[in-house]
Formats: sequence, C-alpha cells, structure tokens
Amino acid sequence: MTVYTASCTAPVNIATLKYWGKRDKSLNLPTNSSISVTLSQKDLRTLTTASTSSEFTEDKLWLNGKLESLESPRTKACLQDLRKLRAQVESSNAELPKLSTYKLHIVSENNFPTAAGLASSAAGFAALVSSIAKLYKLPEDMSELSKIARKGSGSACRSLFGGFVAWEMGELTNGEDSKAVEVAPLSHWPTLKAAILVVSDDKKDTPSTSGMQLTVGTSDLFQHRIKEVVPARFEEMKKSIIAKDFEKFGELTMKDSNSFHAVCLDSYPPIFYLNDTSKKIIKLIHKLNELEGKIIAAYTFDAGPNAVIYYDEVNESKVLGLLHNYFSKLGGWESKDLTKLTKVEIEGTDDEIYKGVSRIILTSIGEGPQETNEILTI
Amino acid sequence: MTVYTASCTAPVNIATLKYWGKRDKSLNLPTNSSISVTLSQKDLRTLTTASTSSEFTEDKLWLNGKLESLESPRTKACLQDLRKLRAQVESSNAELPKLSTYKLHIVSENNFPTAAGLASSAAGFAALVSSIAKLYKLPEDMSELSKIARKGSGSACRSLFGGFVAWEMGELTNGEDSKAVEVAPLSHWPTLKAAILVVSDDKKDTPSTSGMQLTVGTSDLFQHRIKEVVPARFEEMKKSIIAKDFEKFGELTMKDSNSFHAVCLDSYPPIFYLNDTSKKIIKLIHKLNELEGKIIAAYTFDAGPNAVIYYDEVNESKVLGLLHNYFSKLGGWESKDLTKLTKVEIEGTDDEIYKGVSRIILTSIGEGPQETNEILTI
Repeated sequence: MTVYTASCTAPVNIATLKYWGKRDKSLNLPTNSSISVTLSQKDLRTLTTASTSSEFTEDKLWLNGKLESLESPRTKACLQDLRKLRAQVESSNAELPKLSTYKLHIVSENNFPTAAGLASSAAGFAALVSSIAKLYKLPEDMSELSKIARKGSGSACRSLFGGFVAWEMGELTNGEDSKAVEVAPLSHWPTLKAAILVVSDDKKDTPSTSGMQLTVGTSDLFQHRIKEVVPARFEEMKKSIIAKDFEKFGELTMKDSNSFHAVCLDSYPPIFYLNDTSKKIIKLIHKLNELEGKIIAAYTFDAGPNAVIYYDEVNESKVLGLLHNYFSKLGGWESKDLTKLTKVEIEGTDDEIYKGVSRIILTSIGEGPQETNEILTI
Repeated sequence: MTVYTASCTAPVNIATLKYWGKRDKSLNLPTNSSISVTLSQKDLRTLTTASTSSEFTEDKLWLNGKLESLESPRTKACLQDLRKLRAQVESSNAELPKLSTYKLHIVSENNFPTAAGLASSAAGFAALVSSIAKLYKLPEDMSELSKIARKGSGSACRSLFGGFVAWEMGELTNGEDSKAVEVAPLSHWPTLKAAILVVSDDKKDTPSTSGMQLTVGTSDLFQHRIKEVVPARFEEMKKSIIAKDFEKFGELTMKDSNSFHAVCLDSYPPIFYLNDTSKKIIKLIHKLNELEGKIIAAYTFDAGPNAVIYYDEVNESKVLGLLHNYFSKLGGWESKDLTKLTKVEIEGTDDEIYKGVSRIILTSIGEGPQETNEILTI
C-alpha cells in the first residue's frame, strides 16, 4: 500500500486587535479586520500529520489521540477547498497521483494542555491546512491558504503567518478577499515577548461563536466599534508595528481588549469573560506602566479570563520582576534565570492574587507553520 | 434669641437610565438626560433641619453628628442660590425678616448606614435644599429647586420628586434648563418594588466624579452612547413608565446599566464597578426571567457593586422567593411574611453567592421630599 504523508506544525496567535462578530457565519467572514501576534511554537503549537492513500476508505481525524468526527461543515469545507486546489495541480500534470480523489487520515496533537483554556482551534486548523497543502504540493501562497483555514475557524487564518499578522476583513460576499497578510515578519521585531497567565475560573464561558453573534445582534455600542473605532485603530496599530513603537502598540492593544470586553458587557444578556483576577492583573499592569512613566507591558484578554501580557525583551527584568514577585508560586518559571529579574512591588496589590492563576507560560513572538519530518501515527 | 427652623426629609433615587458624564463640571451639567425611580423614605432617607438666626456667627453643617466643612464650592453654590431666592421674596415684602442675610446651621442625618455604599449625596443635597427652601418660604417649584440641588450633586436633582423622575440635560451653558421633572407620580404605579443587595467589596471604587470624566475623555464608545443610544432610550423608557409596561421598562433598565458599565470598561485605564458577585446576580435575574418566559425582575448597578432589583408587587412571591432562596442568611427579611414566598431555584447557581453580599434592603417606590416637625439638634 502506497501512503503519501506530510507533517506541519502551526502556531497559536493572540489578537491585539480583536475579531468579534461575523457578517457571514458559514464562511466565517468577520465584521471587522483584526491584527495578531504569532507566538513561538517552542511553547505552543499543533503538530499535524496528513496521510492519503488510494486504499483508505474514509476521511478520519484524530485529535490528541482521540478519533473525532469529520462531519463538521467547517472541517468539510477545508478539505473540499484543498482537494479542489489539488485537482487543479493534477489537471496541469497528468503524471501526478490523483490524491484529490483519495481519502485522508489526519493526526493532530497539541504540545500544551487543552485544559489551559488557550484557543487551540486556530493552531489546529492552520496545521491541518498546512499539512494537507504540503501533502498535495500546493503552491505556497499563505494568504490563499489562509482563506481555507478561515473557513475552519476565523482566527486560524492568522496562524498561517509568523510575526505580526493582519486579517483583512474584505468586502466580497464570497469571502475571496477576506484573508490574512503579513504586517511584519518575526525578524522585524524578534524581541517581542509574551507572558500568559492562565486564570482559573469556575464558570463555563459563553462560547465565542455564539457570544459574538449575540453581540452583533444586541449591543447598541457594537456598530460604532466596528464602523468607527476598529478601522482607525487597525491603521494605527499597523503603523506602530512598522515603527516598533511599543508604547503605541501596547496602548492600542490594551484599549482594544477593553473595547471588545465592553461590547460583550453591552450585549443582552451581557457576556462576561473577565473575572476579578483578570481585573487585578489589568490594574497591576497599569500601575507598572505608571511607575515606569511609560508603557512597558500591555495586557490583552480573549474570550476568557486568561491574560496575555506583551512586552519587549529590553524590559524583561522589570516586567517579569513584577510578575515573579506576585506569581512565583506558579509553575512556568523553570526556563528563566531569576537572578536577572528586578523585584517590582506595587502598593496595594492583593498578595493572594496568585491564587486565581493556575500557571504562567513565558513565550515570545514566533514563526508561521513549519514543515517537519516528525510523523504522528495512531 | 429668635431662631427660625424648618425640617425636611428627602429620598434616595436610583437611576434606571444612567447619568455618566458632565459637560460642565462646576455647574454639574450632564452629557445626557437620565431617569430614576425615587425610593421609599421608610427605608432610606435623609432628614435635615435648617435653622437661621441673626445671632449665628457662621454657616455650619453637621452630617450624622459630625461637624463638616462648608468650604466645598458645591455646598456654597447651593446656599448662595437659596439666599438669592430668599432675597427676592424679602424684596417683595418689607415685613419679612431678612433671613437671607443670616448665617445657617444645618443638621443632617441618614436613616441608613453610610457604610452600605448607597449613594447618599443625592438624598443629602435634596434634603438640604428642601429644608432651607421651607425655612425661607420659597415658592414650591420643585424643578426650580432641582437646579439648585443639581449644583450640589448632579443626581440630587432627581430626589426633589417622588415616583418616576427625568433629569432633562438641557442645552444652555448656564444650566438654567438642566432640571428634574416628574415623569409619573408614585400614585401612577405604586406597586413598583426594589430589593437592594449590598455587595461586599474589598477594593475602593473609582469615585464617580473622576470616573465619569475619565470616561468622557478616553472612551471611544462613549460618544455613541450619549449621542445615539441614550436619547432614543430616554424616550422609550418614559413611554414604558406611562404605559406601566414592566417588561419594557425592565429590559431598558438592564440594558442601560450594562451600557453604562461597558463605557466604564472602555475607559483608559478601564474602570470596573461590577465584581464577580454582581455578575452572578445579573445571571440569576436573567435566568429567573427566562424561567418565567418574561421579564419580571430587572437589575441596575450604579458606580459600585451593589445590585438594585426592581419588580412589580404582582411578582413579589417569585422574585423574593428567588432572592430568599439564595440570600436568606442575610439581615433584611424581618419585614416580610416569608410564608407568602414561592421558592425559586435556578440550576447551576453558586450556593455560596450570599457570601459576597452583606445585607438586603427591601423597599419600594416612594414620595419626594416631605416637610416634618421632627427637629434635629446638636
């Protein structure tokens, strides 16, 4: 039996200008453009091996060792688009095996616990699309592939690139112009770092898919956000990235996180993702910046209570010095030389703030999807 | 020594359409109109006795037994306006004593603990203005007096009326058209009730005066709220009151509370008044309404974590049945016949939710300021 195989890893990305709201639910077309930073795959990545053979009898998907349904229309849409592109390749060269007609076996694993509550679907769909694209030897046009990943999970399109990535919302109803593009590669600003505080929470969050549509349908402030606030901020944030202006980039990042959570709260019934610990972390970062007299750290929160704190390496001793002072009891500090940190104390901070956090992940900006020889098997 | 004396009580009011933002800080002119319900003075009121005599040597103010400074420009502005109106009265009748030239002694007491965190400044300034107006025998034009109370504390102007009250923002730069008016008297809808859950909080809230100006200056969503959202809601809410349509009134009340807290969160740095307990109460009320298939209870939160829950007496057995089920351990139930309550349980509610609440105050819609023979002395 001949089996064709390819493996790719793909990264997690954390938006600094948030995607919240779809104008087309089946195509995952957003109501606004967004921007993200791709995180290092050393710490957070999905590895996916795609195999195909004329002998395979059905499409199959294993996620973290578990056989998953492939019936979801989102996954189906991705496979269909990729097969269509492969068929085009095949039609131009009759000698190629007709992989587009074979069934696929896809095996996928994350190197981080799903339980951490970090959105893994972005890395998952990016790795799925990348590995099948490699398997099918499709042209390496990442923006083109990003449109396929987008159909799987909106924010997945941004995980097709490393560094700083924009998802341009587009205007067409078929979504052909709603794609990810590179704002700047990793090499442009390689010193950008991220500390993720995984915040414990007893309640189940509103899933982002239903949450965003509740906001679209009920928030009185939402239309103003997508029509006025985000378009201006999108241009400003791209400029701040090009200029490597951390102060501006950080301010815009924090403001957009707050704006996103504000329209969640303005939904009816209101949606809450930030809890009391999230709020304490927000205050801590504002106080650190105040103490420094400039913005050296910036928080952002997705659809959950976890904090992602961006900073430039040049300020690592202070930013991690603050975090270590309050969160030293958590796992996640092993990789750091603690003697290089400056202890930073903020008056009035709750000494038990660490109790609301389960772990810290210290990582940095990273590359886009990578081909690998590592093969996952079942 | 001849001493002239008058006493008045004045109520607390809780906004259902929120006042948040000043366009003129010294005159307390708001960026939007607001609406409130006046609460019963049986449960919450300020009693103020104003005295004046040619023998008094300086203006003095005692609040809850403590001598307070009268140097605040806000209190001074109130006294100045009241003396001016008295001088007009005196000029039309030469036989009247020249009280406008005498010093004032003002003694004021709340019948509720200030520690409860219930905005007492509204009742305080309303009682101060009412008692001096009585002392001075000023014409009984409450909208006129509301402009004076407004200079003391913006929301105080709404405590000059009972029932449902609108504070019309006005347009003039001198504030002469920024005044409270009656939307409907207590007698129009006397069955409206309020349950106040006093939520414990470890942190000090951002004071509302500085908080609202931070929002005015930094929130990108705020302008949309005051220009588009509130003006439409103001008209809709007045209609719902006239129609005694609790479902509509309740929906608008909850939406406006959320909108106000959303623009607080959209401020920079963000302002948080709701804590995790507040959020649990919000969810509880939405689930109760869902269970009933209609809105029978509506929450609203001011610049703090305390919940005020409005409902109509016709649904008291269910609304208090729910609250008693989760908050029976708190003080405040003494006045109620508990046998008349229907136990209402909401699946998934944290049984320890009561631990975040210190007391419950069960009250109802009430009258405006009342003259009284009760005299406070030092």
